[in-house]
Amino acid sequence: MEKIFYKIEENTLRQYTKRVFLAIGCNEIHASLATDVLIKADLRGIDSHGVARLSGYVRLWQKDRLNPKPVMKVIHESPTTATIDGDKGLGLVVAPFAMQIAIEKAEKYGSGWVAVQNSNHFGIAGYHALLAVEHDMIGYAMTNASPLVAPTFSKERMLGTNPLCYAFPAGEYPPVVVDMATSAAANGKLEIAQRKGYNIPRGWAQTANGEPSSESNILKNGGSLLPLGSDRDHGSHKGFGLSATVDILSAVLSGANYGPWAPPFVSYLDPAPHPVGEGLGHFVGAMRVDGFRPVNDFKKNMDIWITRFKEAAPIDDAQPVIIPGEPELAAEEERKKNGIPLIEDVWNDLYALADQLKIDHMPSPSPLHH
Amino acid sequence: MEKIFYKIEENTLRQYTKRVFLAIGCNEIHASLATDVLIKADLRGIDSHGVARLSGYVRLWQKDRLNPKPVMKVIHESPTTATIDGDKGLGLVVAPFAMQIAIEKAEKYGSGWVAVQNSNHFGIAGYHALLAVEHDMIGYAMTNASPLVAPTFSKERMLGTNPLCYAFPAGEYPPVVVDMATSAAANGKLEIAQRKGYNIPRGWAQTANGEPSSESNILKNGGSLLPLGSDRDHGSHKGFGLSATVDILSAVLSGANYGPWAPPFVSYLDPAPHPVGEGLGHFVGAMRVDGFRPVNDFKKNMDIWITRFKEAAPIDDAQPVIIPGEPELAAEEERKKNGIPLIEDVWNDLYALADQLKIDHMPSPSPLHH
Repeated sequence: MEKIFYKIEENTLRQYTKRVFLAIGCNEIHASLATDVLIKADLRGIDSHGVARLSGYVRLWQKDRLNPKPVMKVIHESPTTATIDGDKGLGLVVAPFAMQIAIEKAEKYGSGWVAVQNSNHFGIAGYHALLAVEHDMIGYAMTNASPLVAPTFSKERMLGTNPLCYAFPAGEYPPVVVDMATSAAANGKLEIAQRKGYNIPRGWAQTANGEPSSESNILKNGGSLLPLGSDRDHGSHKGFGLSATVDILSAVLSGANYGPWAPPFVSYLDPAPHPVGEGLGHFVGAMRVDGFRPVNDFKKNMDIWITRFKEAAPIDDAQPVIIPGEPELAAEEERKKNGIPLIEDVWNDLYALADQLKIDHMPSPSPLHH
Repeated sequence: MEKIFYKIEENTLRQYTKRVFLAIGCNEIHASLATDVLIKADLRGIDSHGVARLSGYVRLWQKDRLNPKPVMKVIHESPTTATIDGDKGLGLVVAPFAMQIAIEKAEKYGSGWVAVQNSNHFGIAGYHALLAVEHDMIGYAMTNASPLVAPTFSKERMLGTNPLCYAFPAGEYPPVVVDMATSAAANGKLEIAQRKGYNIPRGWAQTANGEPSSESNILKNGGSLLPLGSDRDHGSHKGFGLSATVDILSAVLSGANYGPWAPPFVSYLDPAPHPVGEGLGHFVGAMRVDGFRPVNDFKKNMDIWITRFKEAAPIDDAQPVIIPGEPELAAEEERKKNGIPLIEDVWNDLYALADQLKIDHMPSPSPLHH
């Protein structure tokens, strides 16, 4: 099936996205920041977390589940820890605010850790973790998310794809960024398979009865995603444990909604009744590298680490080992130069948003065939 | 194949294990502590990390790779971070020392994080993380380990099974303990399959050429373990990323040996030439729960979390969801009462050790048939 897509120059998409956030009532600073987080996802090739979600945020605002003018505040604190009330704001804005506090605490005390309640979807975890790396710190970011994943032995959607990210500064090399969903596959991969009409590999999802499935639309039929590891024999209890860790740090520790109470991103699903906390939760942290050893020593050894892993004996000479964060950086360099590809559905969605919010459209690019 | 095994009363095994550590030169306090870590593994059913390893530690000492009288010291520090030189000590002693410093820092500042270099195998991660839980803190512990795991796309052993552990206090329920190797299967599982003459599931290990294998002795033929996720389609790059994170925090940050330079536990393999650091590395941490919210609120919500996950709809009514840490605690309660089962090989190994070190044997128990 031939797909039409469009390539949009980064700044065009950036200006348009900012107009949307301004139109729903964000102030100048918040609109720029939220835009930066989304565009960073598109640049880095994580298309499922970029402007493809823009209309989703707008719908949450329309349903009064998202406050465009949040007054974020620290509601609990120690020298190196804090909990933030995100005031129903965009996670895209709340998470960088939380990370800023973590970085300030780390500047003073060596490390800083901030739990967040009453927030919304925060985009890519990597954006937030990388904020710390700019300060020669190790960055840490995670969030809970719409319940789609079943624990090992269960058929019930109890957890989100609950991503976690560690980002480490290096020397000559770019940072190492481990940014991963704790499910076997992110939901975006099922959506791609649906659009292309492909089956999905066994081990990504199960039916409503908990049977293995290779149907890409199985979630629409009551199915659930599987934790990293896929089944008990291959360690799905570990993926469940990681996902539980993200849920507990992001939501039980912060006072947000956890487990099946985590509010869904899609506006047509209502949050679960009898909430156990406030909104969605995140957890971010920063540690000064020089709290452990001189920064230059660390970076020099990171470069040795990266070089050695890149040289690890490949199974196939054509496919060397990939350092975590390498593909995203390669995408970022390419897309900054050549533009960001948008599939037709996303382009149309963005175009409709302009009409709806009465803002200027983007200039129509020529469609490309792929 | 019928297996003979012995059941040893906890205190008998404890006294014997302590005699071994005293015999190699540990002082009273270190011998008790190292014993406690090993016996805890046996009690919790993690047989691969208990007294089954005792003769391995002794052989490291015989090879002068393990210092029974370490003078551990802080070599770098900030208010909430530190790096420890373990002075070639038993990880069983060095890691609790590091965790004690993390807990003291957390008492003062809300959190504490300690990287460790120049150490050895530290037993089960859960032991160390649980030390924090006793103080109403969240505990965190990880270590790098003998290189056995290949990164995605590689056939080379570059990483250990690099376990990580998060431990969370709860209220009415016991703590939630996520203690997991970041490989698809721990090496101990292959050893069990070898003893029983079973094949292993595809996805645990690969041949020396990087082909899938179900041979339980494939590591002896140059094969390697696979990261959690097993293959690229099922997210092995995530398992690799987690394992890399453990390696970087434990060894690059601390100044220990990382990647393929991590010194092997087995004494018949020499450490890699041209080391990039000192010994093996760990990373531990502690965060005060009340740095984020009142302890009672957190514990109450942990109990709701646990209750809700235990009630998640099961696929098979006979197998409910298992909360991380539950099986280990059940084993601990049962074995404290009924004794610790040892397979014949381990019993014989311990018995031989007594002769070698000229210490009192354990009284011979009657063999049981299983």
